[in-house]
Amino acid sequence: MDEGVVVGVDIGGTKVLAGVVDGEGRVARTALRTTPGRRVATNLVEDAVVAAVLEAADGRSLVGVGVAAAGFVDAAGERVMFAPHLPWMGEPVRNLLADRLGCPVGLDNDANCAARAEARYGAAKDASSALVITMGTGIGGAVLLHGKVMRGANGMTGEFGHMRVVPEGVECECGRRGCWEQYSSGNALVRNARALMADQPSVLMEMSGGSPAHVTGPMVTSAAEKGDLVARQAFASVGDWLGVGTANLVAALDPEIVVVGGGVSAAGDRLLDPARAALRQAVVGAEHRKIPQIVAARLGPLAGMVGAALAARPPLN
Amino acid sequence: MDEGVVVGVDIGGTKVLAGVVDGEGRVARTALRTTPGRRVATNLVEDAVVAAVLEAADGRSLVGVGVAAAGFVDAAGERVMFAPHLPWMGEPVRNLLADRLGCPVGLDNDANCAARAEARYGAAKDASSALVITMGTGIGGAVLLHGKVMRGANGMTGEFGHMRVVPEGVECECGRRGCWEQYSSGNALVRNARALMADQPSVLMEMSGGSPAHVTGPMVTSAAEKGDLVARQAFASVGDWLGVGTANLVAALDPEIVVVGGGVSAAGDRLLDPARAALRQAVVGAEHRKIPQIVAARLGPLAGMVGAALAARPPLN
Repeated sequence: MDEGVVVGVDIGGTKVLAGVVDGEGRVARTALRTTPGRRVATNLVEDAVVAAVLEAADGRSLVGVGVAAAGFVDAAGERVMFAPHLPWMGEPVRNLLADRLGCPVGLDNDANCAARAEARYGAAKDASSALVITMGTGIGGAVLLHGKVMRGANGMTGEFGHMRVVPEGVECECGRRGCWEQYSSGNALVRNARALMADQPSVLMEMSGGSPAHVTGPMVTSAAEKGDLVARQAFASVGDWLGVGTANLVAALDPEIVVVGGGVSAAGDRLLDPARAALRQAVVGAEHRKIPQIVAARLGPLAGMVGAALAARPPLN
Repeated sequence: MDEGVVVGVDIGGTKVLAGVVDGEGRVARTALRTTPGRRVATNLVEDAVVAAVLEAADGRSLVGVGVAAAGFVDAAGERVMFAPHLPWMGEPVRNLLADRLGCPVGLDNDANCAARAEARYGAAKDASSALVITMGTGIGGAVLLHGKVMRGANGMTGEFGHMRVVPEGVECECGRRGCWEQYSSGNALVRNARALMADQPSVLMEMSGGSPAHVTGPMVTSAAEKGDLVARQAFASVGDWLGVGTANLVAALDPEIVVVGGGVSAAGDRLLDPARAALRQAVVGAEHRKIPQIVAARLGPLAGMVGAALAARPPLN
């Protein structure tokens, strides 16, 4: 007998990943599609999502589908208001997909979904409160309270990367200056490495074919593993700023634990050790508080999809 | 027949204020004692609290007493861990007072209590989420979610004033540099005014008897009301920084409303208008979000006592 399946979908900037997720967060069959891009008709993205979901479900009935989108999702979890790599601009995505899939659909942004997965199955399990900081090209994140994601008045809680940490600082893609993610993110890591390469020898020169402009985040991670000093300094700076910014969030929110995910977190303690040291230095009331642990996310690149499955049945939380 | 009363107590740096508070937040009989100071036996503070409570109750039985303390209260709401103007260092204040008063006692810090009062009776009423920013000599605050105070893993949520906004910035009493409250607080207001007086004529010179070191916050407020340009510039800067720091909190938490209380907020729109302008400029995603209103707290100097009464029956929230 067909008991039906819950499918989680993670719509990223380059790919749409769908997977059947069971009640223990285990991923069974997955399916992948290419994200159609930003300058296409919106229904092409919906087509890709539907195709990936149906392939993952493999003929079984859909109990529910959860969708994680890299972008701003409104407070009600109904619409994708804006996404840098998708054509959606306020479309009622949840309803559109529910109609096409014939099952309940939940919708939230990718950082919130990843946080749900960490809260239920991962590093934030059993924590009364947690910050989840997602370090990719920029910094995203989420605030967990008793395992639930705080979504905020506009669904925009967790835009940590655009907290200003330096007045008149480095210019940010958001149009302002001095945003935290200009100092602590994948982009910052690469920028640090490129600047340091100007003055010091580095294997990154060879890895990038002699062109600092071709250095990527994974190259810096790999070079650091090989002991390259430029790469290690680049990580030390990003890690230090991670701790400084985290101290601000800890002052404001006093979470029990801080979980760091996203691509940059693959560097593990190379990133987290300087962050821990900086947090201890920078946090207020260190002598009167238990300083929260900074730990690596556990669910890796599947966190968004697994967490989306947790949001499969609206309403959110 | 004696139906009993609920008494709220606000233990500040200089005075202990107790008052009977009814179910609509109305304050009846109050009683005042002087705070004994930091270098005294802890039972002297307890004596002052008990005396003030009993005088306020005026012979009626105590249904419950809520205590707001200017200091760090532990996550369980049992102990005052540290308070700059009180001798308590980890004493189980809630239990001690419950034993002496013979009724349930609730304990929380003053900013959280004031926030409870604003949530129940004041400017944050009916808001799904709110930040309460308390501007006194420094910046304290609270985070409200569905009318409840987030207390945090250590009971230290809301230490907004020690978020770092300027690397290597102005030295702070906390031992670090660049804390937000060094740029936006009663102390910052006075420091700004003193610095500006060096170069510009100001009524503050006369008000302070010719000595900038004798300028106080209320003097600056009064001078600004009289049109004094130095005082107005001092407020403009503090207000601008209020908006910049608020933008960081809004990026992280996406609250529905921001309530500003504390002594400095008596200046009203002179403080809040520049803050509103700075928030609009500095907040991320302004084009995709409803920017939260910044409003003045409504309960004034009694907020801590009224909110303490709301915490009268443990457990907290």
